[in-house]
Amino acid sequence: MSGKLIGVGTGPGDPELLTLKAVRAIENADVIAYFAKQGNSSNARAIVADLITTQIEEQLGYPVTTEIDRRHADYKSATSDFYAEAAARVAAHLDAGRTVAVLSEGDPLFYGSYMHIHVRLAHLYPTEVVAGITAMSGCWSQAGLPLVQGDDILAVLPGTLEEADLTARLGNADGAVIMKVGRNMAKVRRAIAAAGRLESAVYVERGTMANGASMRLADKPDDVAPYFALILVPGWNTRPTSAGAA
Amino acid sequence: MSGKLIGVGTGPGDPELLTLKAVRAIENADVIAYFAKQGNSSNARAIVADLITTQIEEQLGYPVTTEIDRRHADYKSATSDFYAEAAARVAAHLDAGRTVAVLSEGDPLFYGSYMHIHVRLAHLYPTEVVAGITAMSGCWSQAGLPLVQGDDILAVLPGTLEEADLTARLGNADGAVIMKVGRNMAKVRRAIAAAGRLESAVYVERGTMANGASMRLADKPDDVAPYFALILVPGWNTRPTSAGAA
Repeated sequence: MSGKLIGVGTGPGDPELLTLKAVRAIENADVIAYFAKQGNSSNARAIVADLITTQIEEQLGYPVTTEIDRRHADYKSATSDFYAEAAARVAAHLDAGRTVAVLSEGDPLFYGSYMHIHVRLAHLYPTEVVAGITAMSGCWSQAGLPLVQGDDILAVLPGTLEEADLTARLGNADGAVIMKVGRNMAKVRRAIAAAGRLESAVYVERGTMANGASMRLADKPDDVAPYFALILVPGWNTRPTSAGAA
Repeated sequence: MSGKLIGVGTGPGDPELLTLKAVRAIENADVIAYFAKQGNSSNARAIVADLITTQIEEQLGYPVTTEIDRRHADYKSATSDFYAEAAARVAAHLDAGRTVAVLSEGDPLFYGSYMHIHVRLAHLYPTEVVAGITAMSGCWSQAGLPLVQGDDILAVLPGTLEEADLTARLGNADGAVIMKVGRNMAKVRRAIAAAGRLESAVYVERGTMANGASMRLADKPDDVAPYFALILVPGWNTRPTSAGAA
């Protein structure tokens, strides 16, 4: 009898945003697996630290690949080999009959690292995925920003897109979430302004962390932002204004 | 001292998908408020039923407006009056110093009914929003379907869009979620086929409910679907296939 693979979403950072199902899955697992850069601790593990007692821990340490260009075939080959090896280590536990909870920050199947394990093992072993609160959801909740309503169209866009493409897509959606802001901050800000959305856009840093912060993008004084900062462009253009509703 | 307004996401249906924070907010609230069609029970209340003990319950019953065309000014006026009245009922509890948890299926600020209360009261009272698992996240988790990865662009689209618009938007995104499928099912299927995405699209009904089901859209035998069914179109086109990964 093989064990069960469980992809567990840990949510965006606040341990209180774990679901009851995630807590039980972690508490009852034989093995807790998580990705982390070699020599670094895992953010996902930190979120669930209080739930780890006697479970076996399996750290899947990313190889150090900063010296290889991400677009180069060598990078893709190195990461592909790494994920295959990580999946093999998880599979060895499953073959031994152990239930393995693979942690994933946010939601496992929404830009989550767990996906690399899932596509290699889910067709081979009993598998369950426990949804998690996404980073973007944590951010708009912390900012108290209504994002989309009714028949609104939402676009989730990486800040790596070209400026003209970003502007066009912002003009063609009601609400938008821009991820991977980081070093793309200046370009993203110009694209949002060109789309006429600067006044309503909100910048959020470290969503649901204790030291998180949000502000109007127009009020952000510079173009320095951490990689995991998000920008939210609210939809629901027909909503009553604060003044109108008061 | 006024009370505190808390928008609480109840997740998509499975009570195990409540967050720890939502459980505590509901248990500690003086008042539990929720929307429901008049004469019907509230789905959000049903999800948290086990947590309701001595709290005051405030049901915000939607007026029966099925006889009025949704696009007509009378409909907008009737619903606007209703939300203003619902907000006033919540405000009366806050003015009396009571903490009010307003339930919202899924995530409160993502297509949630709570938003109508939030825009009317959040600038007037201490307010907190507790993120919830969205219906779409519950659905792709239940289906075990990796949705988006890396620099993928995600589009969340209402099934009410015109067919040509749907097709164009599907062709211009990596992953997509189509909401409000219901009576739009035949049109949505044609649009997905025209965009060349029929083979990978997945139909999900009643995401995280006990009687939920998912299947390849291409295998769904008819064009009958409940209003809350979703269709998921996965991105991550460079992912290893099952065969390649095995």
